[in-house]
Amino acid sequence: MTTTTLAVDCMGGDHGPRVTLAACRNFLEAHPEAQLLLVGLPAELAALQHPRARIVPATEVVTMDDAVEVALRRKKDSSMRVAIQQVKDGQAQVAVSAGNTGALMALARYLLKTLDGIDRPAIATHLPNAKGGATTVLDLGANVDCTEHHLLQFAVMGSALVSAFGEDNSPSVGLLNIGEEVIKGNEVIKRAGELLRAAGAAGDLNFYGNVEGNDIFKGTTDIVVCDGFVGNVALKTSEGVASLISGFLKEEFTRNPLTKLAAIAAYPVLSALKKRVDYRRYNGAALLGLRGLVFKSHGSADELAFEQALNRAYDAARNNLLDRVQARIAHARPLLAGGDEDARPVEAAVT
Amino acid sequence: MTTTTLAVDCMGGDHGPRVTLAACRNFLEAHPEAQLLLVGLPAELAALQHPRARIVPATEVVTMDDAVEVALRRKKDSSMRVAIQQVKDGQAQVAVSAGNTGALMALARYLLKTLDGIDRPAIATHLPNAKGGATTVLDLGANVDCTEHHLLQFAVMGSALVSAFGEDNSPSVGLLNIGEEVIKGNEVIKRAGELLRAAGAAGDLNFYGNVEGNDIFKGTTDIVVCDGFVGNVALKTSEGVASLISGFLKEEFTRNPLTKLAAIAAYPVLSALKKRVDYRRYNGAALLGLRGLVFKSHGSADELAFEQALNRAYDAARNNLLDRVQARIAHARPLLAGGDEDARPVEAAVT
Repeated sequence: MTTTTLAVDCMGGDHGPRVTLAACRNFLEAHPEAQLLLVGLPAELAALQHPRARIVPATEVVTMDDAVEVALRRKKDSSMRVAIQQVKDGQAQVAVSAGNTGALMALARYLLKTLDGIDRPAIATHLPNAKGGATTVLDLGANVDCTEHHLLQFAVMGSALVSAFGEDNSPSVGLLNIGEEVIKGNEVIKRAGELLRAAGAAGDLNFYGNVEGNDIFKGTTDIVVCDGFVGNVALKTSEGVASLISGFLKEEFTRNPLTKLAAIAAYPVLSALKKRVDYRRYNGAALLGLRGLVFKSHGSADELAFEQALNRAYDAARNNLLDRVQARIAHARPLLAGGDEDARPVEAAVT
Repeated sequence: MTTTTLAVDCMGGDHGPRVTLAACRNFLEAHPEAQLLLVGLPAELAALQHPRARIVPATEVVTMDDAVEVALRRKKDSSMRVAIQQVKDGQAQVAVSAGNTGALMALARYLLKTLDGIDRPAIATHLPNAKGGATTVLDLGANVDCTEHHLLQFAVMGSALVSAFGEDNSPSVGLLNIGEEVIKGNEVIKRAGELLRAAGAAGDLNFYGNVEGNDIFKGTTDIVVCDGFVGNVALKTSEGVASLISGFLKEEFTRNPLTKLAAIAAYPVLSALKKRVDYRRYNGAALLGLRGLVFKSHGSADELAFEQALNRAYDAARNNLLDRVQARIAHARPLLAGGDEDARPVEAAVT
């Protein structure tokens, strides 16, 4: 029985230990082979005593508003940094944090370094689709100006991620565009299409072709690749629509006594619907392209959502996501060359 | 009593005259001061006889699949082209078509030309927001590679559009970005932010600052400006989420006899909801930046949706949208200079 160890930044996120410790307790109960390193201010973590959990002290906390350089250069003993350091030192197989995304990416990049063949790490998440599964989308904001080579790197890393979570070793990849036709899109997208087709022909990935924004939710492909600007806009737009519709639903069902009665009748249906679109079930984004595994939870995650991020991180580590990413990159290496090697300053590269 | 004349491409869209003529009939009944030019194959338009409608013959039809160059160079007597020509010749104040967007933009640009100070026309639509109003978004796909000057032009034209439809002569403009902070975004977006701030300071527009994807549906600003690639992805992503949720709702309410009973109880509420998110109510996108008014209906528009596009076009013409755009551009002229003047080939510039 091999154990998998997660280093958890217990101080991160909007709620800190109140939420992270509760999620850790549930997670430990559900996973008898898992071990946790609880990273943070010891006094705040004492509430969780468990034979498979150990406190790793860190005296500082990166706040949601801290600039990246504060996290990098000033708070050298932050819980976020110490958690990532556990992965670097081989004490844990994966780190999880609900803290500030920009700081997390910058620290992870600084401490772990990028993998050979990868210019820029990316952030990947999964969103519900009409096929009853989830579509993996990357990048979500770590890289705002991308070349076609970066998009290819995202496609290769996304394929490794999906194959680590499922049985499909050849998940399909769509290139996010504004039309299905090959001639559509801006110059980078057109060149990316050519490169992804070449990678498909070389057996590096299963390239479907261009997809459009609605295909993310149709589930046309397992993976949708885009630059971080577009991915971030798509993600936040979809959150906006979902909350608009749920707001409308609430308004309409509470309009008058009759509609409130209807809401009672429809309660089981509405609960089922709520569960299906519950963002908490899709919490846990992967930072890909680093020499170590790091997962990011939504900052506002509650207990259930944070536990879900722990589950994702655990499954990724158990299923050797890091080896899978490295193997796929090695295979695609001839096509990956050509990306710019000059890493941009991390302050600008993350959001 | 001044009349306003609309030139309607009756052959365009997925359904052709069956839908467009029915919508025209309803429109004429609702607007006693409006006149219509029904453009298309006379035999197919004979069904609508009305004192304020006149048939303008056109022998060809641009199909949804026709390449832009077919519409531009081969089908010189298409209903789409003849409808726009009516605007150019002063026979109508606005043209409306549900045909192929790329062909419509190319023909409009070729026949009408762009306004002084505008490098590239844009497509603007409006989407429902949580404030009970609508947010105007542009560009939606006409321009996939934009400079900061193009984004400023979109902001100025969008302001004219919103002021033509409402009482607010100083609608707020947000710049779509991946964070509210000024330092976020790619290089073009950062420069656009500076330019828009300068335009705000000069009194050319009411610039709010950066907004994110979810702000479109929150209604944070009246107008959201972005390049056509991002706008198109945001629009299609939002359609995807809305149809995913409506698919889930349908599935959950038809799951078993009990949930079907609940659906009956909830019927009035669900109808009200459906009406509020009904895309047909938001049909009618404006092609802005041309020396004449053209409106685009969704290709799949039904009778109600197409009538809504006619309403939008009519209101825009009556409220002197063209003059408003010109006046605002003239005012902002010192800042608008600097955009690239070399128009890209229309085939590539439209979607």
